[in-house]
Amino acid sequence: MSTDRLGPLDVLVGTWAGEGEGIYPTIATFGYREEITFGDGGVKPFLAYGQRTSALDDGRPLHAESGFLRWATRAPEWIIASPTGLTEVLVGTATEVDGGLDLHLRTSSVSLSPTAKLVESVERIVRVRGDVLTYELHMAAVGEPLQLHLTAALRRR
Amino acid sequence: MSTDRLGPLDVLVGTWAGEGEGIYPTIATFGYREEITFGDGGVKPFLAYGQRTSALDDGRPLHAESGFLRWATRAPEWIIASPTGLTEVLVGTATEVDGGLDLHLRTSSVSLSPTAKLVESVERIVRVRGDVLTYELHMAAVGEPLQLHLTAALRRR
Repeated sequence: MSTDRLGPLDVLVGTWAGEGEGIYPTIATFGYREEITFGDGGVKPFLAYGQRTSALDDGRPLHAESGFLRWATRAPEWIIASPTGLTEVLVGTATEVDGGLDLHLRTSSVSLSPTAKLVESVERIVRVRGDVLTYELHMAAVGEPLQLHLTAALRRR
Repeated sequence: MSTDRLGPLDVLVGTWAGEGEGIYPTIATFGYREEITFGDGGVKPFLAYGQRTSALDDGRPLHAESGFLRWATRAPEWIIASPTGLTEVLVGTATEVDGGLDLHLRTSSVSLSPTAKLVESVERIVRVRGDVLTYELHMAAVGEPLQLHLTAALRRR
């Protein structure tokens, strides 16, 4: 049930919570808790995006991100800032499916602050089916080729 | 009274509200209400940054931004995402002054989404004196040279 203003992105609106796992050749595999919010201001063709994760074992904060998911000229654009000194501009497709959404985006540009670790590209695949949101994040970083880094499954709160 | 973790940035922590004015050769001068938040998670060397403005006349939402202000290796790095399809990575200096802070940052990189208006560079000058935060934002965009675009004065809430 997409709207003109947000297109198929409107099913994302709300807060999602769950757990995920991180893997990468350069680090030890880790589990995390996560909360994601997509907020709609009700006027403009974008959602405010916020995310934070904490460790499964002791609850210490791990990562956070914020930004905006735009519905511009009938295509999604995801604009993300990270406290690791990274920004991502991702473009791709948003496909309305029965009871949900498939988002498949890849960075058209990445910016790094002077002290950030090298990230070359990021691919974000998000699936919504009813009240379940799952995602995969693939990343090329620190000399490693593009590969799976994060997977998570969250439920609408 | 700076801390090791946040350096002189710690005086920014909190919520600031006030009014500002926008000017640029390509648009009509406009006034706005603004709220800025710098949030400290208490653990890592960065602040979460959020901002939103609304029109003085009818309160309609105007702009929003989010991101992170890093205190990395004793220098500030500001990582910002905007729903206009823009990201900024800004670097420069943070100087602790009597009763406050002077921040002077300029973009080391700007990224644009495919549908964003052209922004070439941004300079952000923030001054805190006690419970007053003032800023200037200079911008080179849509073919115009770097020049004053926004000024505002906000009070700690």
